[in-house]
Amino acid sequence: MNGSSAAGSNSRSRAGGAPYPLNQWYAAAFSDEVTRKPLARTLLDRQVVLYRTEGGDPVALIDRCIHRKAPLSQGAVVGDAIECPFHGMKFGPDGVCISIPCQDKVPPNAIVQSFPVVDRHGHIWIWMGDPASADPAEIPDTHWLNDPSLTAVKGYFHLKCNYLTAIDNLLDDTHLPFVHRNSIGTPKMVGAPIDIEGGDDWVAFSRWTLDTPPSPVHAKAGGFTTNVDRWFMVKYVKPSTVLIDVGSAPIGTGAPAGDRSKGISLFSNGTVTPGEGNSCFYFWHTARNFSLGDAGMSDLLKSEMTKTFLEDVEIVEMVQRNVDSDEEDLPQLMIAGDAVALRARRIIASLLASESLSSGA
Amino acid sequence: MNGSSAAGSNSRSRAGGAPYPLNQWYAAAFSDEVTRKPLARTLLDRQVVLYRTEGGDPVALIDRCIHRKAPLSQGAVVGDAIECPFHGMKFGPDGVCISIPCQDKVPPNAIVQSFPVVDRHGHIWIWMGDPASADPAEIPDTHWLNDPSLTAVKGYFHLKCNYLTAIDNLLDDTHLPFVHRNSIGTPKMVGAPIDIEGGDDWVAFSRWTLDTPPSPVHAKAGGFTTNVDRWFMVKYVKPSTVLIDVGSAPIGTGAPAGDRSKGISLFSNGTVTPGEGNSCFYFWHTARNFSLGDAGMSDLLKSEMTKTFLEDVEIVEMVQRNVDSDEEDLPQLMIAGDAVALRARRIIASLLASESLSSGA
Amino acid sequence: MNGSSAAGSNSRSRAGGAPYPLNQWYAAAFSDEVTRKPLARTLLDRQVVLYRTEGGDPVALIDRCIHRKAPLSQGAVVGDAIECPFHGMKFGPDGVCISIPCQDKVPPNAIVQSFPVVDRHGHIWIWMGDPASADPAEIPDTHWLNDPSLTAVKGYFHLKCNYLTAIDNLLDDTHLPFVHRNSIGTPKMVGAPIDIEGGDDWVAFSRWTLDTPPSPVHAKAGGFTTNVDRWFMVKYVKPSTVLIDVGSAPIGTGAPAGDRSKGISLFSNGTVTPGEGNSCFYFWHTARNFSLGDAGMSDLLKSEMTKTFLEDVEIVEMVQRNVDSDEEDLPQLMIAGDAVALRARRIIASLLASESLSSGA
Repeated sequence: MNGSSAAGSNSRSRAGGAPYPLNQWYAAAFSDEVTRKPLARTLLDRQVVLYRTEGGDPVALIDRCIHRKAPLSQGAVVGDAIECPFHGMKFGPDGVCISIPCQDKVPPNAIVQSFPVVDRHGHIWIWMGDPASADPAEIPDTHWLNDPSLTAVKGYFHLKCNYLTAIDNLLDDTHLPFVHRNSIGTPKMVGAPIDIEGGDDWVAFSRWTLDTPPSPVHAKAGGFTTNVDRWFMVKYVKPSTVLIDVGSAPIGTGAPAGDRSKGISLFSNGTVTPGEGNSCFYFWHTARNFSLGDAGMSDLLKSEMTKTFLEDVEIVEMVQRNVDSDEEDLPQLMIAGDAVALRARRIIASLLASESLSSGA
Repeated sequence: MNGSSAAGSNSRSRAGGAPYPLNQWYAAAFSDEVTRKPLARTLLDRQVVLYRTEGGDPVALIDRCIHRKAPLSQGAVVGDAIECPFHGMKFGPDGVCISIPCQDKVPPNAIVQSFPVVDRHGHIWIWMGDPASADPAEIPDTHWLNDPSLTAVKGYFHLKCNYLTAIDNLLDDTHLPFVHRNSIGTPKMVGAPIDIEGGDDWVAFSRWTLDTPPSPVHAKAGGFTTNVDRWFMVKYVKPSTVLIDVGSAPIGTGAPAGDRSKGISLFSNGTVTPGEGNSCFYFWHTARNFSLGDAGMSDLLKSEMTKTFLEDVEIVEMVQRNVDSDEEDLPQLMIAGDAVALRARRIIASLLASESLSSGA
Repeated sequence: MNGSSAAGSNSRSRAGGAPYPLNQWYAAAFSDEVTRKPLARTLLDRQVVLYRTEGGDPVALIDRCIHRKAPLSQGAVVGDAIECPFHGMKFGPDGVCISIPCQDKVPPNAIVQSFPVVDRHGHIWIWMGDPASADPAEIPDTHWLNDPSLTAVKGYFHLKCNYLTAIDNLLDDTHLPFVHRNSIGTPKMVGAPIDIEGGDDWVAFSRWTLDTPPSPVHAKAGGFTTNVDRWFMVKYVKPSTVLIDVGSAPIGTGAPAGDRSKGISLFSNGTVTPGEGNSCFYFWHTARNFSLGDAGMSDLLKSEMTKTFLEDVEIVEMVQRNVDSDEEDLPQLMIAGDAVALRARRIIASLLASESLSSGA
């Protein structure tokens, strides 16, 4: 984790996007995306370049040279520094310039902003707010992604919707029988009762759908020939991570009473990071406790989950377009399926309010 | 014709387009475009979904679910209702929600706006203003389109120009020798005198061009071997429909005196509906009184009229781009050929003014 | 050179681009681009149509008809006039309308703006400010382009960056070892001393890089087998022209002392004209004093120079995008290589200031 040279500004969104809390850890990338080759990504409305030092530490700098604003990400990583493609100025992991080819001296203000980053649980986490407040203990626990007792597949989407719409969608399972009728939906789900619990910075719910035909994806993955009991346990943790423990077990094998060993479990995580304007990055993985290391099963699940998420992408992007283009600003009628998402939105609103207070804005 | 649950707003244009009167009937589609499969179309800056009930009645609803604003047009028609693709809420022809799958009760405010629609003369007409004022007797008469004694071809364009520019073009025949020199233009036309007459909500003109070579299209359709007398009789009716009775007859066969039986007549209608911003839908048909039911003649005329209209599309879209991008706001010099269009514009201005008055704006 | 009917407005940029002096000669096109076929080009944020009269004189008119703003450039040149494609109105070289087909009289205000233009040194130069101040003696001297003792290749780019960014780049040779490392860059250049001199409306510098391996392009063009002495002599003249005298000669053949006869000389000119918003036209040529008339050498140089300029295009357009999208408005740190560009920017600022004064703005 590298220090940062300057505090983030207090403005919390740009280009008309939804506001987001700044003093939080967000996933910038999967760990394996950040290498010795620079990676450019616009996060929280700021252009960032990510790379690794010779020792393997991740680095995040603002992706604009202090000179002419050329993108550093188009240059080369040289030792622990990155070289601007325009005039060859080199900047170290802390953003401080160490060389200007056309002159002998490097002035003390030749610095680009650096951001605290941490490599944990398969993601590179970035902190784009006040670096003095960056505490790695607050990084969301997404350990399922690289848990050695599970086998995971993963991917990401750059969604043309804001991060709130993406989180809403992850916390609402009542769209499954409609949007995902051919993948993970189960018609009976929407009638089953749910339990909700939560705290200051989290909210969770569980829904058991008993004695139901398995969803198309669970049927393929688990090879079920009878009806199943299906569980759906979802936990939101601030600012924008959703952990999903979902599975099915043949009826009569005791899953509702606690024995899920005859079924299949999928431990998924979705973590959402605001991008530019009303766009966001949605990083997902699905880890399983069966067919461990089986490449064929990994291919099947990666393909099925990608297909399923593309169904979400289509609908959330249509919804965002309609919200954005609605100059009448028609009200939205909230329904039962929004209960958990509304609690998550209240947590985010409270994070935003406390940042407003602390900045005096 | 279905009732509507809410009055339209008083704002008459959005996204920078030209203002238009709201309390008018506009063509939403050709009758045969509206089926049991939902049709999405943005009319008067509002997203609308059109479909038919099991009994065949046309329905027009706002194309945004009351819940998350998802487009209903992406869902399925089920019985007389349309089902939202996101969470399965169903709305009847009057816009009232009849089912919310994730909850037992449907609250009384679960309604989307519906619009009066009428299926007449080959078009579905929509009224997007105050539904209490919607009187089907005011629907423009475009009966030529499905007159059994004529054979018609038809089509539509979604033009990137505002509806006024499209109407101007339909009411000005002095561009024919230039824009349409290779299709329906006749050089001598611009020199021929015109008669103009009109009333509160209409204006018409006629122009006879005597003893002139036929236009390329008339020559092909009528097989003329001599010069012709050409008539051009155009009538605008509010808010945006133009009826065109045009034809040619060999010289000396008495057409100017009233006997057009030796020539060919084409009865065309152009009706224009504001779309989103500076765009509009231009629905056209051309009905003929010769070669009735002859598929080869229909193909010829459809192809020639489409080619001709594409010449218009090119020029009116260039003009709209130039008007929109003219930050100097250069004045426009009106010329003789604009006389009829200017009268139509005055009628539209007076419709707009009376709506302003009645809304107190 | 045709007169102009109206003074330009005092606004000096539109659509968010950088301001530019209006009362200056700018290159509108290469001489051979302007023919009897109309050429449309947006210069200094105004749409212009260029063509030649029957006698060969260049004509520049605003490319919007006074009637409906249709683009004259889509019409035909007829005699010395241009005919509007929409209704056939004809305008002479002075912008005065000479015919309106649908009416007998031409009103006195039927005029489109014309601009002074001069055909000189291989370019058509246009004056878009106050025509009373247009003095052809102030046209920049780019005679290398059609000097009979040299052989030139040429081309142009429509850059998505403003004209200042393009000029900055031409006046800064310290980017060559980075942006052009595989074409015209020489690593040792950035360490070599430069001499700067200048006046009220020009600034020049020269840099000798001694005993250096030749750049890849010079090596190919000159066939050098030893190290060379390389010169780089650059002169900016207002408002936006840069003359570049560059070459290499084998070491020990006396080039630094004045005898360049054993080497190769390339006389290049770059002249930049503001386009629409933050875009500009960059006209370049490279004339040589060797292999005169050799088509193979012309092909080689045209291909190598184009490749080199495309390296510039890529970086200056990235820089412009970053400057435009930088809502934080981060400061830019100037470095040694910016010295000459900063002096040129001061000359332009002073031209802008004096126009402000004279317009009372």
